[in-house]
Amino acid sequence: MAKNAAREARSVRELEAGEIQWIAEGAQVLGAGGGGSAHQGALALRRQMRLGARVTVADGAELPDDALGTVISGMGAPTVGIERLASTGRWRGLVDGVRAVAGRVDFLAIAEIGGGNAITPLVAGAETGLPVVDADAMGRAFPELQMNVYSMGGIVPSPLLLCDGKGVVAALEGVPNAFTAERYARALTWAMGGSAGKAQAVLTGADVRRLGIAGTLTLAEEIGRAMDEARRHKRSTVEAIVDVVPTGRHLFEGKIVDVLRRTAAGFARGLITVAGLGANAGEHIEIEFQNEYLIARRDDGTVLLTVPDLIVLVEQGSGLALGSEAVRYGLRIDVVGLPAAYEVKTPRALGVVGPRAFGYDVEFRALPGDLLGRSRRAAS
Amino acid sequence: MAKNAAREARSVRELEAGEIQWIAEGAQVLGAGGGGSAHQGALALRRQMRLGARVTVADGAELPDDALGTVISGMGAPTVGIERLASTGRWRGLVDGVRAVAGRVDFLAIAEIGGGNAITPLVAGAETGLPVVDADAMGRAFPELQMNVYSMGGIVPSPLLLCDGKGVVAALEGVPNAFTAERYARALTWAMGGSAGKAQAVLTGADVRRLGIAGTLTLAEEIGRAMDEARRHKRSTVEAIVDVVPTGRHLFEGKIVDVLRRTAAGFARGLITVAGLGANAGEHIEIEFQNEYLIARRDDGTVLLTVPDLIVLVEQGSGLALGSEAVRYGLRIDVVGLPAAYEVKTPRALGVVGPRAFGYDVEFRALPGDLLGRSRRAAS
Repeated sequence: MAKNAAREARSVRELEAGEIQWIAEGAQVLGAGGGGSAHQGALALRRQMRLGARVTVADGAELPDDALGTVISGMGAPTVGIERLASTGRWRGLVDGVRAVAGRVDFLAIAEIGGGNAITPLVAGAETGLPVVDADAMGRAFPELQMNVYSMGGIVPSPLLLCDGKGVVAALEGVPNAFTAERYARALTWAMGGSAGKAQAVLTGADVRRLGIAGTLTLAEEIGRAMDEARRHKRSTVEAIVDVVPTGRHLFEGKIVDVLRRTAAGFARGLITVAGLGANAGEHIEIEFQNEYLIARRDDGTVLLTVPDLIVLVEQGSGLALGSEAVRYGLRIDVVGLPAAYEVKTPRALGVVGPRAFGYDVEFRALPGDLLGRSRRAAS
Repeated sequence: MAKNAAREARSVRELEAGEIQWIAEGAQVLGAGGGGSAHQGALALRRQMRLGARVTVADGAELPDDALGTVISGMGAPTVGIERLASTGRWRGLVDGVRAVAGRVDFLAIAEIGGGNAITPLVAGAETGLPVVDADAMGRAFPELQMNVYSMGGIVPSPLLLCDGKGVVAALEGVPNAFTAERYARALTWAMGGSAGKAQAVLTGADVRRLGIAGTLTLAEEIGRAMDEARRHKRSTVEAIVDVVPTGRHLFEGKIVDVLRRTAAGFARGLITVAGLGANAGEHIEIEFQNEYLIARRDDGTVLLTVPDLIVLVEQGSGLALGSEAVRYGLRIDVVGLPAAYEVKTPRALGVVGPRAFGYDVEFRALPGDLLGRSRRAAS
């Protein structure tokens, strides 16, 4: 095959700086409260693009079967981390490390389209000149390394490479499973100051087509663009989201009247209470979160929505999606439900990312349909 | 040069199984209380040798300048760790990792001749068929990664490779200094279950000759052999040690009457009180330790001996050197002082391994002479 077949595929297009902001805004929605802020990373990347950096996106459908790529993301503290990851020029060394192991690297893949890690692979693409495939491994954000469709599909996260911001690249080979990879990578990320760049496994073009969730980068951009337009015309961004994702539902409108946070088993868990306004006046709902919003229920205990479906909080003042780190008393919000991509709600996937995988004794209550509006047949 | 010049050097000799036990016994003395037990590792290695494994030792003086090697040791909890490291067959993968980085590996170097890490490189040599150079980087045991003559001599510990016992090899490249290497390696070792195999940096034959402490593997064996013979003839093993290291001194004889242990700043610190017997009846000394015995002083505060000189406790019942993890009330001991190798008591080295580097506001009180009986000129 050609030396860099992915880059030569007809479907490769170049992103404009304005699109980065849309992707960030849409990624914030798809983060379902988690994944950290995409905003700082997007700012840093746009700064680089003004200085000449180019970001290209490839359509996964046209990747040659034997094209080779790696899954890029930032690991660790999302709030501080992603900003640093977007601006330190560390990705070239990381990708060079993958190239040393794999022989070559033709494309970069997105680990999670939700939050800041939607931007991270674009930064890596700008630094390395490699195209980023329009597909991700979650269709949202999840907190742990094994919660992605490539691991669920049997691709062992080895080699696994991490880099700090100072030129150190750590390459782990022979990692037997995602659980071990998560443990080793977490420890090293901590020692690296709390955030690290990560390149996980070597994928082929065929792997991306077989397992990846296609079109999610474009979806993020479309959501962000629609929200941006809505704000310009003083229209509701919630309507804009549901215009782009017609399977989505506006579930509730209200005011945050209580936020409880506690740390358990290493996770920041929290509980938000929302008092209804407008059509929901007199009602109350509770939302449980661990970085991501995981369960929404009425105060009588009726479950409205659970992970892996996306629970999105849109702050009415700004019209922007609200990360769980930013929820606070008094904010007026709309709660939007988006059905997860089919790939993360198979029986096997639910064992890894369903409510029980997060420690809740609750069945998955699925919204009908697919995040990307595909028929079930088209997604499999 | 030849493909494996070190192996072909005339001075390569093969160890016999009986020699392993002597090396272990001598290494226990040179551990000065630290470095963990060499006994379990020696047992495991002798078992392998009975099954056909071969261990060869090379004289550093005859290594070609451009021969390439790496410094081998176990990292982490010494008591449990070294035994596992000696018996799990992990070293071949680690050395293969170094070979992938360096192009080839001609020899293995010893990091610390004190305690279990004297045996670790021999196990790696048996697994890989590579010769182990008769030289180490401390002339004793020290607790941290930067406390070795190669780091003091300006060799940056990069690449640094670690392996768990299950086939994972982590290769860190671009580590800027020993301090960062220590931090990253410690975190990963912890995640690997508390002990890891370590290959630190790529050295040339010229580096080993310029910086290494030559002859310490042979010294350990000579000490162990002399102690073994002394025990067979019901003679004092203390005399045997001082016969082999004539610069050594029998400092004190007594009974341990108190052991205080506390954990401070991540180190197990301790204080041993010894009440004199025989010629020292009526006297008391105190010995401070942090894994290794670091300072011996009289109860009037007079400092008898400090790190980096070696404070060796020999238990009178067994005639064996006593690790700090095994000191307890009631043991009758001899305290022996051995002068450190010249290489670790230069002004520069004392900044890294002198009493102040361990947090004690005490000047280094040096015994005259050299661990290996060299003139100062011969050592430099």
